[in-house]
Order: sequence, then structure tokens, then C-alpha cells
Amino acid sequence: MNDTRILAVTAGDPAGIGPEIALRCVTDPGLCPPMRTVLYADPSILRRAADIVGVAPSWHVVEDPREAVDDPGVVNVVDIGVVARAGDIQFGRAQALAGRAAVAAIEQATAHALDARVDAVVTAPISKEAIWATGSPFLGHTEMIAALTKAPFADTMFVVDELCVFFATRHMSLAQAVAAIRRDLIDAQTRRALTALRVFGVDMPRLAVAALNPHGGEGGHFGREEIDHIIPAIQAVNADIAAGRIVANPVAGPVPADSVFHFGLEGRFDGIVSLYHDQGHIATKTYDFDNTVSVTVGLPILRTSVDHGTAFDIAGTGIASPATMAAAIRAAARFVAYNDRITAQYGG
Amino acid sequence: MNDTRILAVTAGDPAGIGPEIALRCVTDPGLCPPMRTVLYADPSILRRAADIVGVAPSWHVVEDPREAVDDPGVVNVVDIGVVARAGDIQFGRAQALAGRAAVAAIEQATAHALDARVDAVVTAPISKEAIWATGSPFLGHTEMIAALTKAPFADTMFVVDELCVFFATRHMSLAQAVAAIRRDLIDAQTRRALTALRVFGVDMPRLAVAALNPHGGEGGHFGREEIDHIIPAIQAVNADIAAGRIVANPVAGPVPADSVFHFGLEGRFDGIVSLYHDQGHIATKTYDFDNTVSVTVGLPILRTSVDHGTAFDIAGTGIASPATMAAAIRAAARFVAYNDRITAQYGG
Repeated sequence: MNDTRILAVTAGDPAGIGPEIALRCVTDPGLCPPMRTVLYADPSILRRAADIVGVAPSWHVVEDPREAVDDPGVVNVVDIGVVARAGDIQFGRAQALAGRAAVAAIEQATAHALDARVDAVVTAPISKEAIWATGSPFLGHTEMIAALTKAPFADTMFVVDELCVFFATRHMSLAQAVAAIRRDLIDAQTRRALTALRVFGVDMPRLAVAALNPHGGEGGHFGREEIDHIIPAIQAVNADIAAGRIVANPVAGPVPADSVFHFGLEGRFDGIVSLYHDQGHIATKTYDFDNTVSVTVGLPILRTSVDHGTAFDIAGTGIASPATMAAAIRAAARFVAYNDRITAQYGG
Repeated sequence: MNDTRILAVTAGDPAGIGPEIALRCVTDPGLCPPMRTVLYADPSILRRAADIVGVAPSWHVVEDPREAVDDPGVVNVVDIGVVARAGDIQFGRAQALAGRAAVAAIEQATAHALDARVDAVVTAPISKEAIWATGSPFLGHTEMIAALTKAPFADTMFVVDELCVFFATRHMSLAQAVAAIRRDLIDAQTRRALTALRVFGVDMPRLAVAALNPHGGEGGHFGREEIDHIIPAIQAVNADIAAGRIVANPVAGPVPADSVFHFGLEGRFDGIVSLYHDQGHIATKTYDFDNTVSVTVGLPILRTSVDHGTAFDIAGTGIASPATMAAAIRAAARFVAYNDRITAQYGG
């Protein structure tokens, strides 16, 4: 039953908009599903954020998140114990103390998720520069949580409406991404996406692989990657589906990229494999900037996240929109139903 | 005054959905603006299409489109004189007779636009294979109209909502497009886009250039095209804007491609330069598949077009959506106000 579930919500970098948007979400029943939420933050920072966004909740500081109550007038807090005075954090710039707070919130929320004291972790934005200033070796948020959970891998899955978007390649130049589109990679990423769809609740997935070139290469006139790599990879996966070795509908594609996301959003597909970062990012964010959220696949715990940054330029003003944070909380509320599958598939 | 204007609407390949969607548009006042429209088609084909889509208009066959009337119960037709019996055209396959009809409609509508007997040409989809079967040497629709109008160039501009999208490269592989992103190209295409925005009614354009790489290259970590080519090109254009040699707001960019279209659709920009085919196509078509229309820039006449194909698989069934054709007609109705600028800029 949903109302017994608990979501850990980290407040992110306290110099950014994280505390404001996290607090707005948990105090507005219109933004937050009827579940228990617990903010992982310094109480001093949250009190400052409450003044900024104009809310006056009761504070319920808990040692164990399972003590949390479900009441929009009450904000449950796990005190991360880093920033005693909010005035020690200046808005709008990367600083080591803020980085330590961001790291502590992630560490404590992740530990509680591994202990099954919370059912999911929803993360507000952090500053890479701030966490590097603490001496942290991690490239970012996801890498940190992957290490804390000893995850075998950590892929980003975007969720918008009912559609899940996977990425065959991500943080590299477009030229490098094109060069990386090889049969083995597409084969592996397609199988991984099918597994993820089943784990996240789609028992008989309908997956499509986007094409790389305009018009899907138009028979080789506009590039041969479809013919030489993408089609053979899909055929190999589909042979395993036909033989019953993978439970899924036959994988579609390569589908021209200017149609495939539209088709998916119409409900024809449950998931789409995007071949490069911007392909899936342009589609989802142009379609619905505020409701595109990120789910990390490969962790033994459920973790959702906003995909925007700390917005240092508007931190402290109270004007930041909580829409994407609210969407990330709703996505966590939706996917907690599959926590058993997540642990079974990706747990040690 | 709008009500005196006349739009030529070609019915496209008669084996495809063109006659059905064109006829639905001109007979439905909810789809068509209050202007005079004239279909360029064979009357036999239009009568068959009327049966298919279930309309029974009066037919007004005119020699000169200026005789057209504005009455949704009346369909004005310029008889292109190619297909005497509709039964000679089989739905759903490329055939030379259908190709001749498609070519004749384009030729006659274009000639009337050059003579100023119509104010714009709106084109339904044609089959390249069908026009090649007639011996036509043209790669497609746009190339044919460019030749007929002796245009210096013919660029595609997408229009969705109030946003115009330009393409620095288009029909080539993604690898070739990446290699083509050079300073000179971006410089030239940016200037061309600024000119087009002014011609199409934006007196002080706000243009952005999309980035090529994820996160705009993240300071060179994910590709150097932004640093080596795109930024210098924008700086050169902006120097000319600052000096008053180009009338425009400073060009923004490179803006990460997963944000720039969202910003444009929010109203922050009038136009965006997309660096490769799918970048602008994914954005516009995922955002609003049915209302993305194509305007040809560089012609001395106004021409708008659907950007979908002949849909041979559903031709003759009456189920094709007229939504994009209607959007193309509305775009023509909007831009006829700038016909003088179009002729002055791109005419001989």
C-alpha cells in the first residue's frame, strides 16, 4: 500500500535551488503524492528556505525515517548535521561546506534505502564543483550513488508521460557518439533496455531503437550505420525474442528519430533507445521540459532525480519552479511498486 | 486584405493521400482560413477523393485562379488536364501517370504564382519515385520549384507555433553533418536565417544557434566544434550586428540543443539554427507532429508544404489526417502579408 511507503528527498546543494524546490514539493499536496516524504537536509537550511518560499510548516526531525508522518503541514527531516548556521552558505556559488552538505544528504539517504528504511531516494540538484571542493572523486551524483550501492552499472533512463527513454551513448562529443554506434553496443544496450522496462513494470515491453541518420539513412544514401550495425543488432535481439530467450515484443527499428519519439508518446512504444545524448534529450525536453525526469537504472535501490542543475543564478529568490522536482517525486511514487524487482535484478 | 488573397493548393500525387487531405482542408471552414483557395488537380481525381472523404461540394473549374470564389461549399479547381479517368491511377504505388499529374500541378501553380495570379502555393505530398518515372531529373519537390522559379537557393524553414527553425545541414549522414560544422558554414547560415526572419515578418529577429555537442560541448570536454567553429561564427555575425550592418538582436548561442527549442517555443527566440537534420526535426515533430510545416526560403514566391509523405499505405481509405495540410495552409495565409518582402529579397 502506497501510504506506508517512504520517500527520501535530498535537498541538494544548499547554495542552489534544491532546498526551495524540495520544500515546496513536500508542503504542497497538489505537487506531492499522498506518501510519507522525508527531507535529508540541515534544519537551518530548511528554515531559511521556508522563509524564502513563504511556508511555515511544523518541523518533525527524526532519527529514523520510519518515524515520518504523512501530513502536508508537517515536514519530516533527517538532520544531516553539516551546516549549523544557514548564513554560512552563500547562495549562488560552489563552496566546500555546501558540497559537504550535498554529499552527506546523498550518503545518508542512500544508506537508509539500502537498509530498506526508505523505499526510494529522490535527489535535488548538486554542484559538481562543490562536491569536488570537498575532495570527492566522483564525476557526479549518479557515480556517487553507484559507488555507495556497489552497483554493477548506472544508466540514465528518462521518463516523460508513460515513455521511458534509454541512451546507448551519452557524455561524449557527437562525433565520438557516431563512431561508437557499433553492432555490439546496440545489441547490449537494447537488451539492457528490455530488462529495465520489465524491472520497471512493463511485463511485455514494446521497445524501439531510434535511427542515427536522417530518414533512417534512406537505404544507405545518408549513412550506413543502420545497415551495418543497428539493423543486425536488432535482428540478433529479435532472434532471441522469437526463441523465447527474452520476454518482449519484437524490437522495432531503426525508426527515424523525428518520428520515433512521437510514436512512443502516442503510446505505440513503452521505451526508446536513443543513440546519442541530444537525440533523447531534445525529444523529451522539447516535448515537456518540466516533466522529464531521470531514473537511475542498475542500482539496487530506486532513485529518481531532476535533470536540471542548481540554478545558482536564481537560488535564494524563491522563483525556481518545483515542477520537475515534483515530477521526480511522482515517478518515485509510481516505481516503488517494483522495488522487489529492482532489488532482485540489480542487487548484489 | 486577406479576403482578396488566393492560395494555390496542389493535390500532390493522386496515388497518395494528397487529394483527400487537400479536399478536406478546403471544404472545412474549421481547417481553412477565410481566403480563396484553388486546388490544382484533375477533376476526376477530386471527385473520387470527395467520395472517399464523404463531401459533396459544388465544383467551380476556373481557367484563371482569380475567378475563384470564397465559399466553403464550393471547391475552386484549376484542371491540370493529366488524368481523365481516376481509375487509371492505382492507390498506393508510384506510377508515371500519377507523377505527371503531380508535376503538372506544381508547374501550373508555380507559373500562376510567378504571374501573381495566386499569392502562395501550398503543396501536398508527391512521390519521388513517381516523378522520376516521368523522366524528371529533380531530387524532389523543392528542387523542382527552385528550378521553375530560377531561385538562387531553396532552404527549408520549419514553422511550429511562432517559432522558425533553420537547418545548417540537412540531407547527409550524421557523420557528414558533424564534419560540415565549420565556421564559414555557420556564419553564412546564421546570416541567411536572420534575413529570412526579417523577410517573413520579424523586423528585429531574436535568433539562437543550437550547439552540436551535449551540454554545448561542456567547455571542450565533449567536442570542440563550439569553441573552434560555432562561437567564432556567432561572434563575427554579432560584430556586424553591433556595427549596424545587420538589423537584428545579438545572436544567442551556441545554446545546448536540449534547451534551445524549449526556450524558442516559450517565446524567447523567433528562430533557431539547427545544425543537422534530426536536431530540428526531432524537436519540432516531437513537440507537435501535426503542426510542423515547411516553408521554402529563397524562392521569389511564397510556398508552404506539409512535411509528411504520400502515405501510400493508407491512400484511398479516407483516414489520413488533414491536420498538417491545414497547418501549411494557415502558414501560407499568415505569410502572404510579406509577399512584397519575399519578392524583393529573393526575386531576380
